[in-house]
Amino acid sequence: MDALRVYIPKYTTKEAIKVHFDLVFVGFGTVGRGLADLLIEKRSLLEKAYGIKWRVVAISDLKLGSIIDDNGINLAEALRLADSGRNLESLPAKRKGLSALEVIKESSANTIIEVTWTNIVDGEPGYTHVKTALSLGKNVVTTNKGPIALYYRELMDLAKEKGVHLRFKGTVLSGTPAFNLFDGPLSGCSVQSIRGILNGTTNFILTEMEKGADYASALKEAQRLGYAEADPTMDVEGMDAAAKVAILANALLGADIKPGDVKRRGISSITPQDIQNAARRGERIKLIGRAEMNGGKILAEVLPTSLPTSDPLANIMGVTNAITFKTDCLGDVTVVGPGAGRRATGYALLTDLISIARSK
Amino acid sequence: MDALRVYIPKYTTKEAIKVHFDLVFVGFGTVGRGLADLLIEKRSLLEKAYGIKWRVVAISDLKLGSIIDDNGINLAEALRLADSGRNLESLPAKRKGLSALEVIKESSANTIIEVTWTNIVDGEPGYTHVKTALSLGKNVVTTNKGPIALYYRELMDLAKEKGVHLRFKGTVLSGTPAFNLFDGPLSGCSVQSIRGILNGTTNFILTEMEKGADYASALKEAQRLGYAEADPTMDVEGMDAAAKVAILANALLGADIKPGDVKRRGISSITPQDIQNAARRGERIKLIGRAEMNGGKILAEVLPTSLPTSDPLANIMGVTNAITFKTDCLGDVTVVGPGAGRRATGYALLTDLISIARSK
Repeated sequence: MDALRVYIPKYTTKEAIKVHFDLVFVGFGTVGRGLADLLIEKRSLLEKAYGIKWRVVAISDLKLGSIIDDNGINLAEALRLADSGRNLESLPAKRKGLSALEVIKESSANTIIEVTWTNIVDGEPGYTHVKTALSLGKNVVTTNKGPIALYYRELMDLAKEKGVHLRFKGTVLSGTPAFNLFDGPLSGCSVQSIRGILNGTTNFILTEMEKGADYASALKEAQRLGYAEADPTMDVEGMDAAAKVAILANALLGADIKPGDVKRRGISSITPQDIQNAARRGERIKLIGRAEMNGGKILAEVLPTSLPTSDPLANIMGVTNAITFKTDCLGDVTVVGPGAGRRATGYALLTDLISIARSK
Repeated sequence: MDALRVYIPKYTTKEAIKVHFDLVFVGFGTVGRGLADLLIEKRSLLEKAYGIKWRVVAISDLKLGSIIDDNGINLAEALRLADSGRNLESLPAKRKGLSALEVIKESSANTIIEVTWTNIVDGEPGYTHVKTALSLGKNVVTTNKGPIALYYRELMDLAKEKGVHLRFKGTVLSGTPAFNLFDGPLSGCSVQSIRGILNGTTNFILTEMEKGADYASALKEAQRLGYAEADPTMDVEGMDAAAKVAILANALLGADIKPGDVKRRGISSITPQDIQNAARRGERIKLIGRAEMNGGKILAEVLPTSLPTSDPLANIMGVTNAITFKTDCLGDVTVVGPGAGRRATGYALLTDLISIARSK
């Protein structure tokens, strides 16, 4: 391994942490496996630099089966099986075949990794998973936008009442620093407003349209590359971005809104003509999510917006995401990075685990 | 006060910290007063959200005089005097007129704020201030590039030996998140390379030249606005950026270099013709600081570089700063924000204090 990759900045607080995570993966798809990759790759770093030891005591996945073993599961072997599409129940384990909810209730885990699919209508099954785990006094880390966008206050209150942690970095901008900035480098700074490119699929489509494609062919290209679903509604109609705006507004601005409260228009009606007209004005059309608190009233919206190219957000191309935070201490601070991907989203969960360890 | 401005994200670790800072300001110019503003403005937030109590037990400034009082100095009154250019020794205090070094040695402070002028030739007087304070078992927070760029290893080793903290966020990008990302939102992530616009003055001059000015008139405008010194050498010849590259390379890449080891060319020979030629290629010339570790060998340089406008750094205009970190977990992550200013740099010191408190 390259010497560089194990360099630990000297100002990390090595001695302060000593945490043992007994983990359950609820869902073992791309994102969960992204975390599993990193847990294995960084096992020694986590222990030496952050005092974190971990063990996986259960995995439950709708397609791959379900295993529990309080003595620990061979995560590398589970990854190998999952990546080749094979059932996990061929692994040695004390109990097999339990449902996700049974696994949450019956495993000895202290921390649940909730990475099932996002449902922003009623948040299920993630909502029940998260709520059950917190009620049982277990920490939860999740990338699942449904429960967080819909039930932020209730779930945070429950975590507080039970003295455990609920972390959800990966719901916005995957592992790219976002609201976790305010628990670290931007501690003590308050947010006045948020503007961002929160959805990579729509930004990719707009970028393709700027190169000359029409909406339909840009969408087809996004689907071909795996950026857009067969049914692209969640992305192109701004529903995914609206869920993220709700999460940002609730977590950073003290709002109490749901995705449905976010004023929303998607990009499906944007024409090549609109893009060209913007270009003639020296501008670019971007799907911008925005949240701002004004006199106790929250403004929250997702709208196609024509931005001058002097705006940092105007220059974010392709699937990259970005947020500009307007802060009281620094004015505008912009963060640019990936908003999706196995490793980037898996890493979001890892930062959540480290953050829990550091707060002990 | 706007309700929004005191909203504290619920995931901050309120109960974990209980620290009392007895502070000395060594230097009480723009940056020190920027911190003083924030300490007063955020006193209640610091206590409630971070468990931090503070008191100023001494201030020493070459122009404004020197006061020590272990029972605490009225910081608001000291600010008022300093901002109107009046001597601090008119304030009630137990002892007056001591040198900076005497104040460091004789005050009861546990934490020194070193904000004297930057000297990247031998680091003095900052180097002696920092070294003396650490030797006496006092924490140091500083924005002074001299001691950190020249003596990083020695000073960090001394801090470690004495069991105290040395923090220097404000040496690069003022309060805008930079290497402190890797002690928080990017924990566990390693840096493969760094590229940045690290000097606002030169970026302002290049921006003006792009609008049509020649180098001499752009420099004059920068001087008129207070961005450039009467002798602009440190900025325009890339020496300020080189000091920052050395700090970033040492702190994030495990290098052990000094500013003089950084290959360097400034912008004073850039012509309007160069700028126009770049524009014709769809590019912009930026003064880019770069550091990369390759097989145990450090590459560190500051050079005018022609960047395609698709590069996030190409679109950073005026005095704004930015860094792109290439990381193992997320690929490229770019941070954009202010690189100077009373409040932004004062805030860097505040994040350092909070970071010390959180590591206790």
